[in-house]
Amino acid sequence: MDNTTIEFSKTAGKPIRCRGDRRWCAAAVAREAGEPLVIEEVIVAPPKCGEVRVKIICTSLCYSDITFWKLKDPPAYFPRILGHEAVGLVESVGDGVSDFAEGDMVIPIFMPDCAECMDCTSQKSNLCSTFPFRVTPWMHDGTSRFTDLNGETLYHFLFVSSFTEYTVVHVANVTKVETSIPPNRACLLSCGVSTGVGAAWKSANVEAGSTVAIFGLGSIGLAVAEGARLCGVKRIIGIDVNPEKFEVGKAFGVTDFVDSRSSGDKRVSEIINEMTGGGADYCFECVGKASLVEEAFACCRKGWGKTIVLGVDKPGAQLTFKSFDVLHLGKTISGSLFGGLKPKSDIPILIKRYMNKELELDKFVTHEVSFEEINKAFDLLLEGKSLRCVIWMDK
Amino acid sequence: MDNTTIEFSKTAGKPIRCRGDRRWCAAAVAREAGEPLVIEEVIVAPPKCGEVRVKIICTSLCYSDITFWKLKDPPAYFPRILGHEAVGLVESVGDGVSDFAEGDMVIPIFMPDCAECMDCTSQKSNLCSTFPFRVTPWMHDGTSRFTDLNGETLYHFLFVSSFTEYTVVHVANVTKVETSIPPNRACLLSCGVSTGVGAAWKSANVEAGSTVAIFGLGSIGLAVAEGARLCGVKRIIGIDVNPEKFEVGKAFGVTDFVDSRSSGDKRVSEIINEMTGGGADYCFECVGKASLVEEAFACCRKGWGKTIVLGVDKPGAQLTFKSFDVLHLGKTISGSLFGGLKPKSDIPILIKRYMNKELELDKFVTHEVSFEEINKAFDLLLEGKSLRCVIWMDK
Repeated sequence: MDNTTIEFSKTAGKPIRCRGDRRWCAAAVAREAGEPLVIEEVIVAPPKCGEVRVKIICTSLCYSDITFWKLKDPPAYFPRILGHEAVGLVESVGDGVSDFAEGDMVIPIFMPDCAECMDCTSQKSNLCSTFPFRVTPWMHDGTSRFTDLNGETLYHFLFVSSFTEYTVVHVANVTKVETSIPPNRACLLSCGVSTGVGAAWKSANVEAGSTVAIFGLGSIGLAVAEGARLCGVKRIIGIDVNPEKFEVGKAFGVTDFVDSRSSGDKRVSEIINEMTGGGADYCFECVGKASLVEEAFACCRKGWGKTIVLGVDKPGAQLTFKSFDVLHLGKTISGSLFGGLKPKSDIPILIKRYMNKELELDKFVTHEVSFEEINKAFDLLLEGKSLRCVIWMDK
Repeated sequence: MDNTTIEFSKTAGKPIRCRGDRRWCAAAVAREAGEPLVIEEVIVAPPKCGEVRVKIICTSLCYSDITFWKLKDPPAYFPRILGHEAVGLVESVGDGVSDFAEGDMVIPIFMPDCAECMDCTSQKSNLCSTFPFRVTPWMHDGTSRFTDLNGETLYHFLFVSSFTEYTVVHVANVTKVETSIPPNRACLLSCGVSTGVGAAWKSANVEAGSTVAIFGLGSIGLAVAEGARLCGVKRIIGIDVNPEKFEVGKAFGVTDFVDSRSSGDKRVSEIINEMTGGGADYCFECVGKASLVEEAFACCRKGWGKTIVLGVDKPGAQLTFKSFDVLHLGKTISGSLFGGLKPKSDIPILIKRYMNKELELDKFVTHEVSFEEINKAFDLLLEGKSLRCVIWMDK
């Protein structure tokens, strides 16, 4: 990526009309739930105070994009620019921005990190208090930076909106990265892969030599396996409804597999308790089903087992545990949002571990398409054929 | 306590008929639910392999004794010898016992600690696998050591049964203690006080300078306060239905009080969130009500708050949490049985801290009675007048 070929100074301070000079410098707009995205011209306002405008290099598709694309009602909103895993270059900065400059390579991240509040300065929390994470269709100030050519406002997604040539993000939602990492690997660290790896590394603080059970071997579950592998675990048990996932999982260090559709009369938790002689040390729920969280809790080891919730369940879903079991079994239940990672300090560590050939990212990228083919990326994920499909903006 | 005056060698190996030579060397038998205990002669079999017979010096009354005394149906059983907080002297040892000898001062503890299994040798667990803690009316081998003079079997309680001049306990349920600690302080460490202090110290690992909320200011809740005080907390918020508990609590370091019966339209969790600007760092539920666990979770600090369950709810009770909250708020839920303490290694530390005048035990002892007056101890606790009433066997 030769930054010098892009003359950002020509656009700084002005609205950017995508799909101008370039053929595919447009945005892919989700106009209706479940309908193919429409690639069209949009106008991207200059960044306001504390914001940066970013030229997206490439973006990848995460299942959360699909979830909000399928949903008809709030928290889904249309028309919207989805996408939240990406890497790009800072095109221009708003007032008061001193930590970022034109040409910086950055990853937009949905988890805000102001680096100054009580949470961001604490080692224990990754939940910024200045800019709380919310499932909102706006920027932090409650407005949008996108309009279509009819003047209609387009909604944002997770403070990022990356299915567009240019986007605007708040500095709390952007992390500077070294240019040495290939863009089609860097973008993965925006959400899913970091969430899974972080859940094992930070949220659970998995011990070397331990046994891990992962409910759901999608990208997040496989990223948990990758994180657990990095932590030096002995055994990784994958649980999925699709037995083909075991073959996929083996490349991520999954050593054992439980087909939850063929468990017969036994509950999955019983099978895992038998396999492990009393339960896994860490159980990760990566599907988003309350009943699976309860199964995970039922097969995590008494005395020290940790159940970590990563899956996003439907709004209003409840988790139920027997009071007796919580009191008497010495197990812990907690959630893991963005893997417990602090974007500005932990993502550079993951990048370093990738560059050191410790963290493996390549195996997550199963497909790469041009921006024009973005709906193909949706099809591949919906059909269960892809883990991560990278969408290149300029190819 | 001059051990040399007791000639245990005369009784070793033989059944002991209590209330023999001594006037009040009997057992207080719970014959019917809710009826006064009956002091009567009982026969205490010699210890079997791996067991010790202990002459109780004094015992204290814990609310769990009351709970099992009131209950009509299993897990309550009658006739039974209740009592599980005590200190005594080893009278004789069974086959294979090498770590204990006649005359040793010991605390029987309901939590088994075999010191050898994977849990007992791990720093992370206090749930012995060799002798699992169960709510059973028997010794670990499924038999009793007590019979009455009609030959009827008397049930055990929590592997201890201390409302008797002599009892038999397994070596996994007994911890040797220094004779320098007064018996009426040592007995407190068998259950309630250790549970509360340990919950703050071990289970929650409370940080200095933090804020703690305690739901229920009975003995367990006050012991949590004492543990939190030892950990150097800044603020201890007590919550109780009885406003008089605030005065009691002040002596235990409670700095703020919420009267849960006078909270008006506001939930207690809302009040605490306002008082603390976002929640307490640690919330301890010491009552045993699912709704209070949920309130505790609702007012523990996002990002790092820990909710610790100590209260024993009714059988079958369930705890319910919103999946969204567990995933998005970075809070942890766990239980604390015996405060997460490992009897054989952690109780000696608590004794040392008492002897060093760090851990305060004196303030828990509000009453002392003779064994003859044991039913008075029940009345005092039922009327909410006592924290711990020590019952002396020989006075």
